[in-house]
Amino acid sequence: MAQYKAPLRDMRFVLGELFDYSDINQMPGCEDFTPDVVDAVLEEAAKVCEEILYPINRSGDEEGCHWDDGVVTTPKGFKEAYDAFAQGGWTGIACDPVYGGQGAPKSINALVEEMICSTNLSFGMYPGLSFGAYAALHSHASDALKDKFLPKMVEGTWAGTMCLTEPHCGTDLGIIKTKADPLADGSYSITGTKIFISAGEHDLTENIIHLVLAKLPDAPKGTKGISLFLVPKFMVGDDGSMGKRNAVKCGSIEHKMGIKASSTCVMNFDGAIGYLVGEPHQGMPAMFTMMNQERLSVGIQGLGLGEAAYQGAAAYARDRLQGRALTGAKSPEKPADSLLVHPDIRRMLLTARATNEGCRAMGMWVARALDTAKHHTDPVKREEAEEFVQLMTPIVKALFTDWGFDNTNLGVQVFGGHGYIREWGMEQYVRDARIAQIYEGTNGIQALDLVGRKMPAKAGRNLRRFFHPVQAYIEANVSKDGLGEFVQPLAKAFMRLQQATGELAQRGMKNPDEAGAAATEFLRLFGLVAVGFMWARMAEIALAKKDDDPDGFYKTKLITAKFYMERVLPQSGALFSAIMAGSKTIMELDEDLF
Amino acid sequence: MAQYKAPLRDMRFVLGELFDYSDINQMPGCEDFTPDVVDAVLEEAAKVCEEILYPINRSGDEEGCHWDDGVVTTPKGFKEAYDAFAQGGWTGIACDPVYGGQGAPKSINALVEEMICSTNLSFGMYPGLSFGAYAALHSHASDALKDKFLPKMVEGTWAGTMCLTEPHCGTDLGIIKTKADPLADGSYSITGTKIFISAGEHDLTENIIHLVLAKLPDAPKGTKGISLFLVPKFMVGDDGSMGKRNAVKCGSIEHKMGIKASSTCVMNFDGAIGYLVGEPHQGMPAMFTMMNQERLSVGIQGLGLGEAAYQGAAAYARDRLQGRALTGAKSPEKPADSLLVHPDIRRMLLTARATNEGCRAMGMWVARALDTAKHHTDPVKREEAEEFVQLMTPIVKALFTDWGFDNTNLGVQVFGGHGYIREWGMEQYVRDARIAQIYEGTNGIQALDLVGRKMPAKAGRNLRRFFHPVQAYIEANVSKDGLGEFVQPLAKAFMRLQQATGELAQRGMKNPDEAGAAATEFLRLFGLVAVGFMWARMAEIALAKKDDDPDGFYKTKLITAKFYMERVLPQSGALFSAIMAGSKTIMELDEDLF
Repeated sequence: MAQYKAPLRDMRFVLGELFDYSDINQMPGCEDFTPDVVDAVLEEAAKVCEEILYPINRSGDEEGCHWDDGVVTTPKGFKEAYDAFAQGGWTGIACDPVYGGQGAPKSINALVEEMICSTNLSFGMYPGLSFGAYAALHSHASDALKDKFLPKMVEGTWAGTMCLTEPHCGTDLGIIKTKADPLADGSYSITGTKIFISAGEHDLTENIIHLVLAKLPDAPKGTKGISLFLVPKFMVGDDGSMGKRNAVKCGSIEHKMGIKASSTCVMNFDGAIGYLVGEPHQGMPAMFTMMNQERLSVGIQGLGLGEAAYQGAAAYARDRLQGRALTGAKSPEKPADSLLVHPDIRRMLLTARATNEGCRAMGMWVARALDTAKHHTDPVKREEAEEFVQLMTPIVKALFTDWGFDNTNLGVQVFGGHGYIREWGMEQYVRDARIAQIYEGTNGIQALDLVGRKMPAKAGRNLRRFFHPVQAYIEANVSKDGLGEFVQPLAKAFMRLQQATGELAQRGMKNPDEAGAAATEFLRLFGLVAVGFMWARMAEIALAKKDDDPDGFYKTKLITAKFYMERVLPQSGALFSAIMAGSKTIMELDEDLF
Repeated sequence: MAQYKAPLRDMRFVLGELFDYSDINQMPGCEDFTPDVVDAVLEEAAKVCEEILYPINRSGDEEGCHWDDGVVTTPKGFKEAYDAFAQGGWTGIACDPVYGGQGAPKSINALVEEMICSTNLSFGMYPGLSFGAYAALHSHASDALKDKFLPKMVEGTWAGTMCLTEPHCGTDLGIIKTKADPLADGSYSITGTKIFISAGEHDLTENIIHLVLAKLPDAPKGTKGISLFLVPKFMVGDDGSMGKRNAVKCGSIEHKMGIKASSTCVMNFDGAIGYLVGEPHQGMPAMFTMMNQERLSVGIQGLGLGEAAYQGAAAYARDRLQGRALTGAKSPEKPADSLLVHPDIRRMLLTARATNEGCRAMGMWVARALDTAKHHTDPVKREEAEEFVQLMTPIVKALFTDWGFDNTNLGVQVFGGHGYIREWGMEQYVRDARIAQIYEGTNGIQALDLVGRKMPAKAGRNLRRFFHPVQAYIEANVSKDGLGEFVQPLAKAFMRLQQATGELAQRGMKNPDEAGAAATEFLRLFGLVAVGFMWARMAEIALAKKDDDPDGFYKTKLITAKFYMERVLPQSGALFSAIMAGSKTIMELDEDLF
């Protein structure tokens, strides 16, 4: 079976060479995460992931979760792993120190998340969902609720969930049916059915804190009438003691394509006691404040699995002897050459590598902006960073998960027939990766969010946070010796992106279907250029350092950058054509002719 | 769950409108398959597939095959379905009437195969492998062997397998270890281990006839030293009676990503009695003579699953109400509009439709050539058709299975979260489709076959069988009113293909890695153009018939053709760039830096 080693060298590169981590470290609230501490955190995270999470990834997939009359049992070893994970402080790594967390900036936590997703995405779902619930409470709940619930969630003794989807609606939450009736004591009685609730029920923690979207009796129609409630599995006394079981029960768990060790639950709320979080009817904005972090995290799931698949495939290609090089035997003393002599095998590996490393860099770019938006002392810097995050979030979520899925498939393909066999573990990556393109807003919805909301917002100011620095970089570097060959293809793709953006803005105002028809390809074009910019900058650094390169790290960066420019970025042309094709043909076919 | 209806209208269109089936019907050996008979065959095949194979597709996936001490049991219902299938004559539909078959031309059988793959690929593997073994025996075995084994295989009482792969080699069969020692009576003792043997053991038939690649004691090294043997599971007496069990046993079955109801076996030959098929050391050429048929069939697996996924997704998109059209509510009386109001949902469906229908047309083009190569009275026509088949086979195999996989994934994406849940059946299509990109020669190997063997063969004469008719068609139609808008994009992509072909031929002669590095993208470019040609011709017919179009069939064809030209074919530009990038960057990275 494939082995995984956390790509610490490349993580340190994006953290401290491609970007300047000291910027983040100097912001208030981030001072404790000095470079030394960060190094120790990354080393320790790698150890936990490689030694505790990775060994139960395959077995967890084979066994899956068990449901018995509302009780959900996770696969063998998950409870022990979770205990070790929580005791190590990993459930609270990114949480507020006021509630017992460690306050790690997203720049650091994003790297830890990648390692978790590479080694055991199913496992990662449990603390991941808890963190989502924590973040929503932290931003919107009253101090009383926060004091009562957050410390246990941060230490991992209690878990959390996000209960949004219902059987008849996922993307369109405006039509949810779950209702919340006010009770005399100020709490609410919650009734309704939620589906696809990740970590909705399990045996890892003593209590589970559900965050539930529901409608008050006087709720306006649509998404403006949705409120957010905290519904604990077990009631909690004012002294923090565990009380009786609340009227919320797991009706069943789903049998899924992948992430089988993550429980995906139907949750039945049958007059369960809940507490309003934030203001009435403000549930959707409350969800949205944490969505950018969440969507970056889902993007990182794609990257994590893409990285794991790459590592497995590269090792297999090195070790597997079969066939001969097209140019003549490379290892004539052996019965066959390694798979790495074949250009097509290298093409697959380099494609995965170029997109993985490009996403890691781009993820850091966005994570830094999240940190800046939260921690910077200058409100102008905060606002600019927030605008950048708004713009880039849907791109990160969709691009990383699409490429992540593609890269897990490349991993299988390098393995040939063995890739299709479960015991090798490569096909699990494909099945696990597939969900990330769907949940937390399908990738089609991300594309609509980009063209319909993020681009037009603030008269295009979000866009300028991307276009200005990229344009400036291109102008400053396109003619430089050596670097020019990387920047010229970027300039070409960037021009296409600028033109497509202008065209789409105009057309979309007249007819929203024009934006909708081009959205997916436009998002991809945007992502290609953004990652292209990362690769140009990585090439710049590698060029500067290539003479002191004992392990070949910078040489590899340069070759991979060239590969990206030659064989990935040119997709911008085809995307541009598709964007320009407009909506007429797409909208022309009658519904009953599909 | 999704329902499947055989796309008989479109099948009749490619058979009798896009092409002229009477050409095939007039060839000797095909006369019995008159248009009336063909219609009845297709109707009946649709019934068998929809009513017998489809209902056990999901349950077969859930249950999988069982192995117990060498005995393999197929999932519930498979044996009964197989009996009905064999009794209906479907195991012998494409077999020689001399041995009890019905002699259907490939033009017809390809359509039947598509329906089988749409409804139950796992099931289809059993008769599919038998047919492969039948075809190899029919072409290469002695009359004595044929008389003894073929009739039972044709009637489906006995099954067959192809035993090629070994643990250490799949693609590179030159290094197989299985050996064949001559015995005094002229038979051979076969010893070795074969893996990934589809239908290697099962409970559907009384006997299983293995075709096994092995090396004789005096065998030359490499692929020139491989011989083909017939090894029955049970010995067969001269009177056709079943004798004692032969020394071949199923050591285990694989646990796979998909096609779980198809047994994939490790087969241990432990001094099993075998009979030489054809001449000593001629096993590989014997395999290759049937490979073109097989590879077309595997391509059709991709198409079949892509079609099934499209149908499921289109039905779901029509029925599922969620969200509102970007241009304002389309069904204001309902709580939400159907998914079909969203351009991005239509983009996904039209992508699947354009590629599925394009592949169906292209598959027919190649199937007709297979029939012509086999049955035509004019040896020149036969040779030309054979050249065309040689050229197009790797393209069909790789393009259809890549697109088939993509289309099953589009189907899942249209379903959103529900697509990831097993009970809906959409994710099974993804898992089942994945193998077709790997087996019968990985798609990377198909690409190498195209650029390394098929293109240079006969000084490029194979190529002319494609380039000449397409060029002539473009010249005759590019300026025509109405049709021109379809032919112009084709002409542009065709020019790129011509240029890439010339460039690759030159560069590849100097350095084979140049061909290898471009092979996958070149194959895709070739396939895009070939399907583009099909769409131009389909548009031509639809334009001519659009005024008499009660069910909107031709209108749909025209819109789908436009979609292909606007949004699929432009990928040719990006592919062209990747092809031109050359092999330098790909080959530059040291093996230990991957």
